[in-house]
Amino acid sequence: MRRVVVVGADAAGMSAASQALRVAGGDLEVVACESTTHTSYSACGIPYWMAGDVPDGDALVARTAVEHRENGIDLRLRHEVTGLDLSAGEVEVHDHERSHTYRLGYDEVVLATGAEALLPDWARAGDAVLPVKTLDDGAAWRRIVAERRPACALVVGGGYIGVEVAESFARLGITTTLVTRGAEPMSSSFEPAMGALVRRALERLGVDVVTGTEVIALEPAGSDGVGARAACVGGVEYAADVVALGIGVRARTALAVGAGLAVGAHGGLVPDDRQVLADGVWAAGDCCEVWDRVLGEHWFVPLGTHANKAGRVAGTNLGGGSACFPGVVGTAITRAGDAEVARTGLLVEWARRAGRDAVSLTVESTTAAGYMPESDPMTVTAIGERGTGLLLGMQIVGGRGAGKRIDVAATALWNGMRADDVAMLDLAYAPPFSPVWDPVQIACRKLALEL
Amino acid sequence: MRRVVVVGADAAGMSAASQALRVAGGDLEVVACESTTHTSYSACGIPYWMAGDVPDGDALVARTAVEHRENGIDLRLRHEVTGLDLSAGEVEVHDHERSHTYRLGYDEVVLATGAEALLPDWARAGDAVLPVKTLDDGAAWRRIVAERRPACALVVGGGYIGVEVAESFARLGITTTLVTRGAEPMSSSFEPAMGALVRRALERLGVDVVTGTEVIALEPAGSDGVGARAACVGGVEYAADVVALGIGVRARTALAVGAGLAVGAHGGLVPDDRQVLADGVWAAGDCCEVWDRVLGEHWFVPLGTHANKAGRVAGTNLGGGSACFPGVVGTAITRAGDAEVARTGLLVEWARRAGRDAVSLTVESTTAAGYMPESDPMTVTAIGERGTGLLLGMQIVGGRGAGKRIDVAATALWNGMRADDVAMLDLAYAPPFSPVWDPVQIACRKLALEL
Repeated sequence: MRRVVVVGADAAGMSAASQALRVAGGDLEVVACESTTHTSYSACGIPYWMAGDVPDGDALVARTAVEHRENGIDLRLRHEVTGLDLSAGEVEVHDHERSHTYRLGYDEVVLATGAEALLPDWARAGDAVLPVKTLDDGAAWRRIVAERRPACALVVGGGYIGVEVAESFARLGITTTLVTRGAEPMSSSFEPAMGALVRRALERLGVDVVTGTEVIALEPAGSDGVGARAACVGGVEYAADVVALGIGVRARTALAVGAGLAVGAHGGLVPDDRQVLADGVWAAGDCCEVWDRVLGEHWFVPLGTHANKAGRVAGTNLGGGSACFPGVVGTAITRAGDAEVARTGLLVEWARRAGRDAVSLTVESTTAAGYMPESDPMTVTAIGERGTGLLLGMQIVGGRGAGKRIDVAATALWNGMRADDVAMLDLAYAPPFSPVWDPVQIACRKLALEL
Repeated sequence: MRRVVVVGADAAGMSAASQALRVAGGDLEVVACESTTHTSYSACGIPYWMAGDVPDGDALVARTAVEHRENGIDLRLRHEVTGLDLSAGEVEVHDHERSHTYRLGYDEVVLATGAEALLPDWARAGDAVLPVKTLDDGAAWRRIVAERRPACALVVGGGYIGVEVAESFARLGITTTLVTRGAEPMSSSFEPAMGALVRRALERLGVDVVTGTEVIALEPAGSDGVGARAACVGGVEYAADVVALGIGVRARTALAVGAGLAVGAHGGLVPDDRQVLADGVWAAGDCCEVWDRVLGEHWFVPLGTHANKAGRVAGTNLGGGSACFPGVVGTAITRAGDAEVARTGLLVEWARRAGRDAVSLTVESTTAAGYMPESDPMTVTAIGERGTGLLLGMQIVGGRGAGKRIDVAATALWNGMRADDVAMLDLAYAPPFSPVWDPVQIACRKLALEL
């Protein structure tokens, strides 16, 4: 019987494992090795667990170890894969429970090692300074919040995690300061004016947003070991009882690199569209780069949606079926207080760097017909290419019902639609749901005039 | 200077008029004749006006007569076009204010006469029996509700209007019975199981839903003239203080037919994709049929979204520009209490009648990650074609955030996507907004296995 060894038991790994068994229908042995005690959990849910929206960490586990084993997967928790021997077709596994190391032969190996929070040396500053990445981080935060009852928090980083954690702290009544290098929050993936809307939403929650400021040092503060002090470029200092780090993640590729496998320009593994990395070696999830259909190149977009899909593609192929991962268009969404914040495709700057004549256009509209009580403001920025008339990207910030409208733009980008075509789409209208021209279409209609 | 005469000053007519002037940039005289006193209003908002969500009827007017005149349109209210002389290039207009009739020459005429509520003879049963179509109907309903304080209402018809008006009555505390011929509400455009979900949503609002029952007679009841009694097939009777009619609309085509112009299989005018009906004659809006891109034939889909777009296309072409109306895919949405109800594309039955090997698949999922407090149930039925694997249609009933997801399916249908491609789209995911696989994608993924 063929043996597949899966390295990493989160979204990509367990999607691959489950799907391989499902498709193969039995003639396959699947061993999944996981260094922690957790499987298939929603890292994206951690900020909401911190805020108390989610009662306990178990709720974030999509499928437990017991369920995976019942499905026929030989799941080995606290078994860390420490080596990969491509020529022998073996992995080296360290069993943390029994403190022994063994070698395990495979016919196929799936690298699903995920991503890890960036944690520069300066950020290792005591037990009140933590990233927000793993289920263990989440549990630590819950403990810290419950036991130490921090009065003030510092959030380092203005990306998705930073914004979500700042929202969680603020909703817990903690005085919160968010420090970001960018001119606005979310500036690495939103146009500045849209980032400004996110900043204002955070400010409405009571978060103090400090932009254009880089933290360069952290040190534990206070004799009881609680709290930390952050030093920024320019000499400004911030003290807080707790510090949450949201300064980014990187693909965890040490195992692959140790085996002589290459990484891409953005530091991730680059499997083909069947998720094959090398002969007998598969890769999927946050340890990989993904093909960006709009940009036409690989990009590092560590998201659970892609991990689930790519894992499933790998599993289908491993099980004897046939599937391709068709790439991504760069869609993402989050919430900042009363603002829904969503994006897809390119920024003007990215498009220009790729040699495309990009322009953007912003419209103010409403989530529902203006006369309805449900109606909230929403802002849409659409980005397109002169000459071709193609839609290249979109960003939305607005009230309830605004954010998921980004999916229309994502589907349009997927199909390479022109902005003027998007304006004529047959989208759903009724007064509680939309103005008669959906704001996405208004933006595209006006953008088309510029193109 | 060329003179364009627009017949009908609602969505299609005034979109055409405004856009023609905008594109032509001055070298155009636009006369718009309207038999009522209203312009450019949202008929879709009337049920919400009745329910008190909208403070007054003026709020439903998107653009007033004064605004249109300021834009340079010669807008003539209570001027009813009573004749169309194609060979002379003239319309006959009756001025209700001055009670005189005149002829008006045109270079181009735009027929935007809209649709009218079906009102069979049996339905003319006193002033407590009314359709819900025009702003005047809305005003009458507001007056009836405020002055007569009806205790119980009967709604005849289980389509969009019937469901929306039943919701409005129920929210006003009026004991409401909805009678529909269909096996479930919405049965003319939803699969029966989805219609059953709409019925249950109405029942949660306290509405008594009577299915499979046809009203054949209405008569005024009570000596004070208030109220009516409805007789149904089979002898059952319902008495109510007020009766709202939502039994459908038909294209208003008498003017065109009187001029010798033809109507299509569904009773509407059938202009080409530039909105040209005949030499010098244009048509747009609810008096027209529209091209259904999925079905590949013309269909009668009287909706404000199409009217606005088709009017704009006509106006662009009239003004010297170039535009085409690309058709529709049959998207619609409404609300029934706590349920959002949306559809696009074909029903299984429609597809089979068109000779396509259609199957449907239904999944239960949630609007947000299952562990989030925002999470509400949602049901998705996806319809696809065996062999080609194409998605043919979708219907959604669910909690807040469920309905507008139909736009992904609408955009997919527009682009002729296969169900398995929809399953791999890069849609927005974060716990407050969606499970990691969006319910639309789960439905398409499972449907693809059946295809």
